[in-house]
Amino acid sequence: MKPSLAKGTRDFTAKEVINRRAIINTLQKNFELFGFQPLETPSFENLSTLTGKYGEEGDRLIFKILNSGDYASKTNEQDWQAKNSQKLISQISEKALRYDLTVPFARFVAMNHGQLVFPFKRYQIQPVWRADRPQKGRFREFYQCDADVVGSESLWQEVDLVQLYLKSFSDLKIPVTIHLNNRKILSGLAQYAGITDQLIDFTVALDKLDKIGQDGVVKELLEKNISQESISKLDFLFTLSESALENVLLLKEKFEGNDIGTQGVEELEFVLMQCLDLGISSENLKFDITLARGLDYYTGAIFEVKANGVAMGSIGGGGRYDNLTEVFGVKNIPGIGISFGLDRIYLVMEELRLFTDSAENAVQYLFANYGEKESAAALKIVAQLRANGIAAELYPEAAKLKKQFAYAEKKGIPNLVFYGEEEIEAGNITVKNLLNGEQETITLSAFLELK
Amino acid sequence: MKPSLAKGTRDFTAKEVINRRAIINTLQKNFELFGFQPLETPSFENLSTLTGKYGEEGDRLIFKILNSGDYASKTNEQDWQAKNSQKLISQISEKALRYDLTVPFARFVAMNHGQLVFPFKRYQIQPVWRADRPQKGRFREFYQCDADVVGSESLWQEVDLVQLYLKSFSDLKIPVTIHLNNRKILSGLAQYAGITDQLIDFTVALDKLDKIGQDGVVKELLEKNISQESISKLDFLFTLSESALENVLLLKEKFEGNDIGTQGVEELEFVLMQCLDLGISSENLKFDITLARGLDYYTGAIFEVKANGVAMGSIGGGGRYDNLTEVFGVKNIPGIGISFGLDRIYLVMEELRLFTDSAENAVQYLFANYGEKESAAALKIVAQLRANGIAAELYPEAAKLKKQFAYAEKKGIPNLVFYGEEEIEAGNITVKNLLNGEQETITLSAFLELK
Repeated sequence: MKPSLAKGTRDFTAKEVINRRAIINTLQKNFELFGFQPLETPSFENLSTLTGKYGEEGDRLIFKILNSGDYASKTNEQDWQAKNSQKLISQISEKALRYDLTVPFARFVAMNHGQLVFPFKRYQIQPVWRADRPQKGRFREFYQCDADVVGSESLWQEVDLVQLYLKSFSDLKIPVTIHLNNRKILSGLAQYAGITDQLIDFTVALDKLDKIGQDGVVKELLEKNISQESISKLDFLFTLSESALENVLLLKEKFEGNDIGTQGVEELEFVLMQCLDLGISSENLKFDITLARGLDYYTGAIFEVKANGVAMGSIGGGGRYDNLTEVFGVKNIPGIGISFGLDRIYLVMEELRLFTDSAENAVQYLFANYGEKESAAALKIVAQLRANGIAAELYPEAAKLKKQFAYAEKKGIPNLVFYGEEEIEAGNITVKNLLNGEQETITLSAFLELK
Repeated sequence: MKPSLAKGTRDFTAKEVINRRAIINTLQKNFELFGFQPLETPSFENLSTLTGKYGEEGDRLIFKILNSGDYASKTNEQDWQAKNSQKLISQISEKALRYDLTVPFARFVAMNHGQLVFPFKRYQIQPVWRADRPQKGRFREFYQCDADVVGSESLWQEVDLVQLYLKSFSDLKIPVTIHLNNRKILSGLAQYAGITDQLIDFTVALDKLDKIGQDGVVKELLEKNISQESISKLDFLFTLSESALENVLLLKEKFEGNDIGTQGVEELEFVLMQCLDLGISSENLKFDITLARGLDYYTGAIFEVKANGVAMGSIGGGGRYDNLTEVFGVKNIPGIGISFGLDRIYLVMEELRLFTDSAENAVQYLFANYGEKESAAALKIVAQLRANGIAAELYPEAAKLKKQFAYAEKKGIPNLVFYGEEEIEAGNITVKNLLNGEQETITLSAFLELK
């Protein structure tokens, strides 16, 4: 009887909705300033569209929707008798909730590529669902905010997306550093050290440099059977300069004759140089050779955004990929995308006290209710205020004034308006400011003129 | 391999997202002007929260989410062997997609009523999901836009909601008529005719008056075994006046000694009179005694909104109910709510050509790409435009101008900007207006000053 929220989900009350909306509106505005157009895809897709795209673990975390009607009768008898939950999934479920925004976007592009104008720039801000074990800060329903350009390999996109990140976070007043790397540099390093087959082991260890230090990384590499000789060749990674451009020069040297590495460094150099030329401070843009997110997917630039001075994981990330839609049978659609982490951005803004007590759309005036006749007169003023874009309401019952007061206070309404028999007859209106306690009686026409 | 949309779902492309957003923003703004605060509830609820709230047919139409893991092992052996799809649902599914916004709202109020300020006014604009058979104009995922006030029985809420409807539709530029009735009047009529037990049969038939006429209604009533004598007593319904107030007087007469009927007429009279007093035209507000929506739920006022001059069902509806949360064990929370039908409003606005070619957030300037050096210079101008809130982009590749042209045209970008070597050296910029073909070269500073 007593109801509860489903595990891992949240209600968002007024303040939260309004704060989240402020973030979303800022992202939306910037996406559009940069030429991205909105797309919304359905909450559920055919199960076959989603399965096999996120690895085995991902497949498990997709929420499947049970078929309607007599689903049991349509199953394979043997699987049913064996109670084979795994095999029965596709027999009793043909739909599933969106797990991310990328696969639905790929599905959309694959279905419509004949009609789209390339390069196609879309943004998408929608919830996704994952059957993860709920934890502090991890929910089963959360928003993703993605911007992707597909159909162009131009490195100007990388430059543009760095700017999009910086402008958006600047508008949100969050100081950030963008970490930049390139998948090809990581491949080049693996090749340089003769550990091409162990690229993942290598990058997973290197990624922990911040946390476990040089000794820890070396220890982990040895545990993964990477030879001391290979590790020695990579020793220079532990003594890199603070200057991105110095590191670029050093890598260029190391990568002589190493095509993939050289290409990676040159790409990174182009993006760095163009960003600096655009006036972006080198303090906001860090060449981070340990950055290895999305390595199974990204093929060029890799981005990650961190809020300066706040202990929080990344609040954004993205990268370049070779083919968005190959899995749906449409080839040669390369692209690059970035994502903003709404929940973490929210937490950062809370920590930095960046949310204003956004009273903008909140009720400014509560008209006290003195009974039918006065209420009818009050509602006319209320209607005029609303027509002028000022939120106002009449307390619905002729309750004791104390109760009406309490309502205004609890709802955070700053002004209580008395428009009783006396005021109406005199053509006046009395406004009590609940913030400073001041009360003033002025003529109705003066009151309305001010609005 | 070839992907498709799940049945009954839609992708919304840029134009549709922007148009829908325009409607939603208008509703949102008005909800807030009227003192409603936003609420967002999760997309899925515990299955037990939803089942039993929408009747048997409704229960069938709820999308259930399959449990993760080895769901089959946790079922009742007998039900499994019998392949009893119905009984197994609650054993293999503990979550379900939101079917409407009312039950999640009730769940929220029941969980939080101790902390809420009553009367509690919330609005909610979110998608809902129904496993209906997809048809033209009927989708499995669609938005509901609801505003409810709970914790007050004041009839001023009815008056306020009529105004909210009229102001919102006036802002959307859709001319509407609000149809108004009262459940108590219908009960009173049934009592007056001695057919209290057949209230539903009676109202279902009466509701069709528009379509099947007086003869049709009478025929249906007879088929439902309503006596000729009862029907005769209701004959006056077929010759009601066009004037709402005349009908109110007539009903008051008929309802002498009929408490429920009298109360219904008096409530309706109050709402009508107050609305007229507020300057609402009687043409926009119709007392429609045939209106019987939500009869199993509504207990007082019943609303329905129709767009004038457009052949479309109702684009909004609502009514008063006695208890929102009783089903969750919390009593005495009466309320009233209205709903806006987003999809139908969209269709009406399309038919009435009310959508502007909202270029507001669309890209205004496409900078032609002449190569690296020019692009770097162009991006600086692009950044300045964006900083001034003007959407602009650089074509990402130094492709043939014809191709760049085509991109601008297809994307509906009105201005193509040439900022080549010559212009850069001379401090000029050339802008070609693609709408009228005019091309102009001006100084860069003049161009930027205009922005």
